[in-house]
Amino acid sequence: MRIPDLIQKKRDGGQHTEAELRTLILDYVNGQVPDYQVAAWLMAVFFKGMTAEETTYLTLAMAESGDMLDLSSLSHTVDKHSTGGVGDKTSLVLTPMLAALGLTVAKMSGRGLAHTGGTIDKLESIPGWSPVLADEPFLKQAREIGLALVGQSKNLAPADGLLYALRDVTATVDCLPLIASSIMSKKLAAGAKTIVLDVKVGSGAFMKTLEDGRKLAEAMVNIGKLSGRNVRAVLTDMETPLGFMTGNTLEVLEAISTLKGEGPEDLRELCLALAKETLLAEGFSEEEADRRPREVLKDGSALAKLRAFVASQGGDPRYIDDPSLFHVAPETVEVKAGQSGFIAHIEALKIGQALLVLGGGRETKGEAIDHSVGIELLHKIGDAVEAGQPIARIYHNQKGKDAAFTLVQEALRIDAAKPAEMPLILGHIS
Amino acid sequence: MRIPDLIQKKRDGGQHTEAELRTLILDYVNGQVPDYQVAAWLMAVFFKGMTAEETTYLTLAMAESGDMLDLSSLSHTVDKHSTGGVGDKTSLVLTPMLAALGLTVAKMSGRGLAHTGGTIDKLESIPGWSPVLADEPFLKQAREIGLALVGQSKNLAPADGLLYALRDVTATVDCLPLIASSIMSKKLAAGAKTIVLDVKVGSGAFMKTLEDGRKLAEAMVNIGKLSGRNVRAVLTDMETPLGFMTGNTLEVLEAISTLKGEGPEDLRELCLALAKETLLAEGFSEEEADRRPREVLKDGSALAKLRAFVASQGGDPRYIDDPSLFHVAPETVEVKAGQSGFIAHIEALKIGQALLVLGGGRETKGEAIDHSVGIELLHKIGDAVEAGQPIARIYHNQKGKDAAFTLVQEALRIDAAKPAEMPLILGHIS
Repeated sequence: MRIPDLIQKKRDGGQHTEAELRTLILDYVNGQVPDYQVAAWLMAVFFKGMTAEETTYLTLAMAESGDMLDLSSLSHTVDKHSTGGVGDKTSLVLTPMLAALGLTVAKMSGRGLAHTGGTIDKLESIPGWSPVLADEPFLKQAREIGLALVGQSKNLAPADGLLYALRDVTATVDCLPLIASSIMSKKLAAGAKTIVLDVKVGSGAFMKTLEDGRKLAEAMVNIGKLSGRNVRAVLTDMETPLGFMTGNTLEVLEAISTLKGEGPEDLRELCLALAKETLLAEGFSEEEADRRPREVLKDGSALAKLRAFVASQGGDPRYIDDPSLFHVAPETVEVKAGQSGFIAHIEALKIGQALLVLGGGRETKGEAIDHSVGIELLHKIGDAVEAGQPIARIYHNQKGKDAAFTLVQEALRIDAAKPAEMPLILGHIS
Repeated sequence: MRIPDLIQKKRDGGQHTEAELRTLILDYVNGQVPDYQVAAWLMAVFFKGMTAEETTYLTLAMAESGDMLDLSSLSHTVDKHSTGGVGDKTSLVLTPMLAALGLTVAKMSGRGLAHTGGTIDKLESIPGWSPVLADEPFLKQAREIGLALVGQSKNLAPADGLLYALRDVTATVDCLPLIASSIMSKKLAAGAKTIVLDVKVGSGAFMKTLEDGRKLAEAMVNIGKLSGRNVRAVLTDMETPLGFMTGNTLEVLEAISTLKGEGPEDLRELCLALAKETLLAEGFSEEEADRRPREVLKDGSALAKLRAFVASQGGDPRYIDDPSLFHVAPETVEVKAGQSGFIAHIEALKIGQALLVLGGGRETKGEAIDHSVGIELLHKIGDAVEAGQPIARIYHNQKGKDAAFTLVQEALRIDAAKPAEMPLILGHIS
């Protein structure tokens, strides 16, 4: 089929075959189909949508456009993906929990960009820890410890990178099947049999409404089903940052504390929910899936997995045993409540931007970051505060401290009335 | 406005401002806006359409993307455009008529491509005639004779060429505002105050149905109104070729014969209708617009204008006085009726293709053509024929004669029942 005919087919509401989508995507990556034809096709998809089958074929073609990780020598491989948020250190807690539960996490992770952080950046707060592992030691570590986590050294789903860049400049980002295939193509290429998705919803997330989040989750779970993977999704609130800490070292500290059975309630709740969903996908009973994640937090086995994983990738394990060793920026400034009342809202995006101006995030790829800076929220939504009482603490190295102060101040809204309680877990899709 | 925002505005059903469309088109022509953004925008236009105002702003921006002919030193400038057909020698008859009527035709014309012919190619059948004239002699000739016709030496509406090429490979050709702006941008750049459009409808034309033809005509007339030109359109049937002759020299012969008050009835009717529409646009009364075109055919003044125009552009006027001087391919083959009955249909496209295989048209730009070959229909739709009776004659120079024979045979359908009479003029839009 000629490419203009393929564009016309979608334009006129037709349904693509697997062969058509494979041709379009693979020839695009090969440079045989020009950007302008893909751009017209993307806009036709925006208007005419895609069926679950088409979305799956598209996702598979994108996944197969580059390296496909072969995890077949490992058993019970699981992966987790979050659609991104601020202060989201879930992976740091969840992946050692999954390893302690007997599952295998052999995962590629990204670095942060703009206001969202990346797991690799956070782990690099631990002196010596390296995201670089060759294939053999990567698989060996995953087999022995149940947890190996490396940077994206492989060429995973290059079609996704190309398509995303094109969508970004052609007003075709907001399109469900394209968003779903973008996320899932990298997950399918990353090789795990079971994939648990944390679909964030709210002003701090890509999906602004629960309805949109649910549709995206359903689309991704459908792709999983049709491509032979176990995929489950949890819909979670991302109006406000997760936990108290935002910033690389600060988030590692909060993760360690949570693995010790302490830590903020919302982070613990989310990790338990995601671990439960993973166990359900792996065939555990509802009762086991509820109980066992709590046990690995309580008995220290999840924390032990983190320690073994850090040590195996060159990190200094004493930092896990004694978190006071971590270097946190020594200078602090406190944001105080401008009035008495209740914390009504904490805008995640502004907190993420504050970290960025402090130097704790990067605006463009490849920039160095300052792991020691960050923002600590001293209160969560619903807490009563008095005028003048400190409500947030900024850890800085001078850079950007004034801009960060303003952003954190703007992020925190205090109202006279106590806000209604908002659940963290908004739904499950399987 | 950033280009992605502009694309999104159209995608979401918004209405563009004049400034937005000017930026998009002029920056596209300058190479500052890439093909892929325009391709996405074109597809958004396909789905969301454009208002009459937007279509006019687009057309004006396209017209202003290159040279704008300045005909302001001439009075009563008129132009004619046909959406293209087979055997359409209307311009050869109409433009001398308009000159004889006291109007000024200072026109740029194209060459033929694929199955449609071009006026310049037809006129080059006259020995010595040249489509090349510098600006000054072009305007002088138009002022003195009322008729000057040159090839497209100017860079008229380059945005149209770029957009058309992009639409062709992105499934965005069939889109009314884009078709209307493509035609009208060149007409606006060509400078005439009055423009009469022959919108052809039927299987041999770009617009397949009367409904679509009417919409296109209305869109183009609206562009004219909003941009300060007099634009009128005639909707005409293009199921079958116009007149009997298809082929460059053959069509000139048929045009001369029509200017002598002879010639085929359909060609004469169409020329009278278009001349009337032009006079109405120029403010003549209905009675005058009806009568005067008949007079210039009858009194020989239109033919005299053709002769003067041909001589002024280097052509040998003796060919106009004595058409037997023209060189027509000496070898002929006749297509005979396979059965008795009535000519039910003559497929224009197949006749056009037959001319192409004979060498009388070109498949790619710049190809040389054979002016002497062509197809003469011996009957028109509705004529009764006997089995074995000649119904068409092919003038050839050996090249492609067998393929042409088959195509002409396929083009002519004979039925037992006499077909219903189809009017040639299907409507007027002003």
